Amino acid sequence: MNVTVNGQAQHFRTVSFDAKNNRVQLIEQRLLPHQFKIISTKDFHETARAITDMVVRGAGAIGATAAYGLAQGALAFRGADRKRFAARLSAIYRTLAEARPTAVDPVNALNDVRAAMKAGKTVAEQQSLALAAAEEFANEDVQHCTAIGQHGAKLIRSGMNVLTHCNAGWLAFVDYGSATAPLYTAQEQGQKFHVYCDETRPRSQGATLTAWELAQQNIPHHIIADNAAGHFMQRGEIDLIIVGSDRVLGRTGEVANKIGTYTKAVLAARHKIPFYVAIPLSTIDWNLRRGFDIPIEERHESEVLGAWGVAQSSKAFGKRNGRRQYIQVANPTSKARNPGFDVTPAELVTGIITPLGIFKPDELWSKRPELGFKRAQEKFMRS
Amino acid sequence: MNVTVNGQAQHFRTVSFDAKNNRVQLIEQRLLPHQFKIISTKDFHETARAITDMVVRGAGAIGATAAYGLAQGALAFRGADRKRFAARLSAIYRTLAEARPTAVDPVNALNDVRAAMKAGKTVAEQQSLALAAAEEFANEDVQHCTAIGQHGAKLIRSGMNVLTHCNAGWLAFVDYGSATAPLYTAQEQGQKFHVYCDETRPRSQGATLTAWELAQQNIPHHIIADNAAGHFMQRGEIDLIIVGSDRVLGRTGEVANKIGTYTKAVLAARHKIPFYVAIPLSTIDWNLRRGFDIPIEERHESEVLGAWGVAQSSKAFGKRNGRRQYIQVANPTSKARNPGFDVTPAELVTGIITPLGIFKPDELWSKRPELGFKRAQEKFMRS
Repeated sequence: MNVTVNGQAQHFRTVSFDAKNNRVQLIEQRLLPHQFKIISTKDFHETARAITDMVVRGAGAIGATAAYGLAQGALAFRGADRKRFAARLSAIYRTLAEARPTAVDPVNALNDVRAAMKAGKTVAEQQSLALAAAEEFANEDVQHCTAIGQHGAKLIRSGMNVLTHCNAGWLAFVDYGSATAPLYTAQEQGQKFHVYCDETRPRSQGATLTAWELAQQNIPHHIIADNAAGHFMQRGEIDLIIVGSDRVLGRTGEVANKIGTYTKAVLAARHKIPFYVAIPLSTIDWNLRRGFDIPIEERHESEVLGAWGVAQSSKAFGKRNGRRQYIQVANPTSKARNPGFDVTPAELVTGIITPLGIFKPDELWSKRPELGFKRAQEKFMRS
Repeated sequence: MNVTVNGQAQHFRTVSFDAKNNRVQLIEQRLLPHQFKIISTKDFHETARAITDMVVRGAGAIGATAAYGLAQGALAFRGADRKRFAARLSAIYRTLAEARPTAVDPVNALNDVRAAMKAGKTVAEQQSLALAAAEEFANEDVQHCTAIGQHGAKLIRSGMNVLTHCNAGWLAFVDYGSATAPLYTAQEQGQKFHVYCDETRPRSQGATLTAWELAQQNIPHHIIADNAAGHFMQRGEIDLIIVGSDRVLGRTGEVANKIGTYTKAVLAARHKIPFYVAIPLSTIDWNLRRGFDIPIEERHESEVLGAWGVAQSSKAFGKRNGRRQYIQVANPTSKARNPGFDVTPAELVTGIITPLGIFKPDELWSKRPELGFKRAQEKFMRS
């Protein structure tokens, strides 16, 4: 999407590849929203570290980063010895796959690139196939998000107030995002609407990343405390809710997403406000039989006990050296619990916006042939 | 309640009076939870400023502070000229009443003290009546909260998980609090239970004040993000919810309270978790006919866009000079909306815990003779 740099709107992807210098280029997301900076990784080790250290985050974005990282590592290989090249490739694969051990997207992306390379007969052929496959992975991510945008934009009319939770934006993918794609497409189509961004404590991705994205695209929006959404729904000030998801169960239609999503879905049902979940097909889990079994990560309590931001008294505020710092907000002798995700039952979900159209959550299983069930099963067996 | 100072548990009230030195003593709440300090105001001007600057906050606490402030001002008067004394008294009254113009409790407290003084024939008599009335106001506040505790404690059994929102604790009253009183009483009765404190963004009163209170009383508790309560309810980890209120409508049973209360009530209804509101009788508004008409204060957006806390890197953390600072969390080019309160309909409220017992919200109107309707109407007419 466009980012205004030095007064000029320029188009950026979250992840891209500089083939001339063999570098992966990433938006340094840990500096957002206070600073916009592109970093270049000079080898696959640095690329893996960028995934580990959360320079880049979000399913689609870390998938594409891993794919480019494998191509980067392959292209750096000097010589024509296929056996040594294969050994080197295994090491690169392992390093990138282990960069975020619980994430499934980098592994899927690495497998895609490795499978594509098999058609190459020489090291040079395999190297160029690796880059082509990584580019294809990234482009497909963009196509999927664009298609989500096309389908989801039909839900948005001028004058609407749309609520989002967390960041399933273009920063979490290569471009466009999942939950944000319908907003961007509706804007391109000339719809005038307003967005409420849930702050999304404890990590505040709504107040930081989603709000930054919307500001860059000049979409009118206000940040609200997570506590305030119910009040605005009660007063008739929210017409539509769109969120992303970390995992949608293909068998039940249950939706795992950032903590607080379930609460918004319960409120939406009470107020008869449509509640949509936007996802690429890779987010559908065809195996798990019930949402209760989705592992809920309990994150570090420091996230709840404090906050990250930029000291406003500092002259550096908003400047290059305006570094984020942590402050302790809570009582220092208290502890916190910090579940990272919750599970929303299918009955509270109006529809799932996918690249192939909008489905009711209980339709996913019967439509599984169209929705990539077989391809997903093959990947599952291979993993 | 008890506060541990230098390793020793000592009993404090939020507001008390040092008659020997004619000073109002207040817990400096703006330093909590990072520092515990008692301040003494040397005259009624300083007392009024402490109310304005939110050294002291909460309905009961600012009522008692205003009452003591009036006594303090009266006692500082030198001489026996009743006319000059009366003029002086009017000035004191005005200063204290205007310290927090939208709050009704200081005005009620001031009227109580002024009415009691009428029985005095000399300046000296009126001065001592003023102090006695202020002490009575503070003691009654404690008695009301103690009675709330007695009734509310019956709801709490060992092994329960109780959820609270915001701070309706002893810091908001003279002692015991409203929503916290049942917890303190149940603990005194030997019940072993655990409390989840909603963080309560944007001002984080749950994470700061309520958590500090519970830690001082050694009540097991965890702070959670406001987003997490729904998840814990879904997993069966919350058995009872008790909140305070800023205004309960006597005619409808609707409850105005800190933003986010309504959301918790909606979640509680879905999960069939009892949802109680603890209040002194002075919180009942017998006049307003519908909750929609309760004015909802829109507070400054900086509360949502950032957070207050203590820099953890600072060596001063937790120390005397560990001063709270503000950091900007959100995207600096975004704006926020910040409603301070919301209104919960009576149908979502299991019961109202009052000093006179627990009532269903739709019982309030029919029980109005017992619940102080007449006294409240008289005050209303007088004001």
